[in-house]
Amino acid sequence: MNTLPRSLTNLIDELSLLPGVGKKTAQRLAFYLLKTEKDNLQNLAKAINELQDGVIECTSCGGFSDNDVCKICLDPNRNEMFLCIVENAQDIFVFEKVNFFDGRYHVLGGSLSPLDGIGPDDLNIRKLMDRVKPGMEVVIATNPTVEGETTALFLSNTFKEMDIKVTRIARGIPVGGDLEYTDEATIIRALEGRALF
Amino acid sequence: MNTLPRSLTNLIDELSLLPGVGKKTAQRLAFYLLKTEKDNLQNLAKAINELQDGVIECTSCGGFSDNDVCKICLDPNRNEMFLCIVENAQDIFVFEKVNFFDGRYHVLGGSLSPLDGIGPDDLNIRKLMDRVKPGMEVVIATNPTVEGETTALFLSNTFKEMDIKVTRIARGIPVGGDLEYTDEATIIRALEGRALF
Repeated sequence: MNTLPRSLTNLIDELSLLPGVGKKTAQRLAFYLLKTEKDNLQNLAKAINELQDGVIECTSCGGFSDNDVCKICLDPNRNEMFLCIVENAQDIFVFEKVNFFDGRYHVLGGSLSPLDGIGPDDLNIRKLMDRVKPGMEVVIATNPTVEGETTALFLSNTFKEMDIKVTRIARGIPVGGDLEYTDEATIIRALEGRALF
Repeated sequence: MNTLPRSLTNLIDELSLLPGVGKKTAQRLAFYLLKTEKDNLQNLAKAINELQDGVIECTSCGGFSDNDVCKICLDPNRNEMFLCIVENAQDIFVFEKVNFFDGRYHVLGGSLSPLDGIGPDDLNIRKLMDRVKPGMEVVIATNPTVEGETTALFLSNTFKEMDIKVTRIARGIPVGGDLEYTDEATIIRALEGRALF
């Protein structure tokens, strides 16, 4: 018999649906929330409720945005001749965190996967073609997976006839990684991508 | 510059306040929730909002309850001569999970801690005295900490003159534990509490 109050069981069930949150973590969080101040509880519920309404897709790059066009696309200090192509909107965040890239982004909304029936028309490529300009550098930052590499190859072929410098993010041993535990494909990439010291 | 939409940043901040949830986990959860179905999102927010209103303190045992008196206190199949005393309401849940104890519970709402100024009057002891009956067994399940042991000793002294069997949960090596990594206090308890094979 479940002897817990219904509203507690309810929340535990809801929290258990989150990725990486098991029954035990859900219980711990629910018991914590039960004892937290009512204001904090309501703030959390409000933030969850308002999350999706507050986020729209940037009509220019396809990234997450508060408005029609996102802050990055509107920022005049960004190098407009440098475009980073990513698979998903949250990938932008990965680059923004390191504060190293000063160009703009373009979100494909996925990667080519013939087996899953995802072709070029299913990706946000038409808008990409409107955004590329002669003399631009385009760095393809799709994931180093089969689908990501296929997409990168497709894009580099698409840009071949145009006056565009196409680059690909480096793949190799992650910083702090251990050669001994690195997979063969990465070792090969690391050798292929070796640079002068 | 934070280039994320405000509602996303908001939720990440709120989630980061949860115990065991760091910035990175909060981001992962927020991105997941951003892509989840709106219905699920609203269910989660609703469960959080309604959590505290749906849980009240049982007027009998002090545990979590849907109604004035909790399901356990109302259950006629529970042995009313067997009472388990715990520090906190969520401790009840720990015992209920293993489905082994068939008595009722009493929540103290804390433990004696003279250093923090918490004395017997600050705990839910008056109600406990109303609930104990001659011939009853009372098992003291306060935590095996200094405060928990102090509380257990205080209670066993309180019950001494009454016709009540007072027991204490066993303390020893946890099942699956390793002797080599067990602290000295636990080893001593395990020896003291040794039982015939």
